[in-house]
Amino acid sequence: MRIPIWISNRHIHLSQNDVEKLFGEGHQLTNLRNISQPGQFACEEVITLIWPKGKIEKVRVVGPTRKMTQVEIMLADNFVLWTAAPIKISGETEGLEYITMVWPKWEVSGRYLLVTKRHLHCTVKESQELGIKNGDTIKIHVWGIRGLVFENVAVRARDDYALDFHVDIEEANAAGLKTGDRGEIIN
Amino acid sequence: MRIPIWISNRHIHLSQNDVEKLFGEGHQLTNLRNISQPGQFACEEVITLIWPKGKIEKVRVVGPTRKMTQVEIMLADNFVLWTAAPIKISGETEGLEYITMVWPKWEVSGRYLLVTKRHLHCTVKESQELGIKNGDTIKIHVWGIRGLVFENVAVRARDDYALDFHVDIEEANAAGLKTGDRGEIIN
Repeated sequence: MRIPIWISNRHIHLSQNDVEKLFGEGHQLTNLRNISQPGQFACEEVITLIWPKGKIEKVRVVGPTRKMTQVEIMLADNFVLWTAAPIKISGETEGLEYITMVWPKWEVSGRYLLVTKRHLHCTVKESQELGIKNGDTIKIHVWGIRGLVFENVAVRARDDYALDFHVDIEEANAAGLKTGDRGEIIN
Repeated sequence: MRIPIWISNRHIHLSQNDVEKLFGEGHQLTNLRNISQPGQFACEEVITLIWPKGKIEKVRVVGPTRKMTQVEIMLADNFVLWTAAPIKISGETEGLEYITMVWPKWEVSGRYLLVTKRHLHCTVKESQELGIKNGDTIKIHVWGIRGLVFENVAVRARDDYALDFHVDIEEANAAGLKTGDRGEIIN
């Protein structure tokens, strides 16, 4: 089975509480376009990340809101922001780096910053067909002049997920990949 | 045998002819610091790359001069410059992308632009010890939370080389590597 690849740029997940702190009371995130995972969407809202020594403007919010705010950047962004965001699976809350998010009127700060660990999304049924299960660590091979085997790919199987191998732009460029390219699970 | 890893940022090799076009008649490149390969050095000279829709400032020149000018960027830089630099082994001259290099007074343009294909440098003796030879394509494994197998690694064995696996910053970040980390050749 060929695994479709999804390439993530840096992005922000917000709690409803932080949405209202940044954009005003009762504000609802605005769907700009749906993305690969069911129910997830890129928002019209963009935010600036700042740190005493650096900033990155126009980082897109991904909706819907989550219980916990989380800012997912790339390793190279640590050199822009002068941060030390660790590589963690999205959703982890321990040991994250401090970051400030700014919108013209308000700001929110906290230990929200991480670099996303690569992972495979799939339904439970797909995981069974692939011979893997939620929580497994697998290897995914991609072809080409920059062919690679990605090790330590975390499996996240849940019935509201869709089959997708998520890498960030640096991982995609290291492998010469574009969104829509495919990989294969290997042993 | 553990293979030391060298991480390249975007950089420029210049012919003496182009050095003089950019910096003036008789100009000699200035050694800022030696780098991993014997006789190679980062220069004080930096140049701006421009393209109608984008530019990248302060791209460092690597000396000494070469027969052919060559500009080595990362895949992400193609999106900044709006170029379509192909992935090629350093030294290839066919099929490269057009680029303009600017220094305050002068500029030089030509089909000099490529994205560097990853490669292993070593002496002929080292290649024999490793069971490989110049021109081979090998796989190199690196460990860690972003562990990877780099496929299609070109072997360049020559007695004036030093043992070093060359990747660019995107490849290094995809693997969570720092200069000085090590890899292993695998089958």
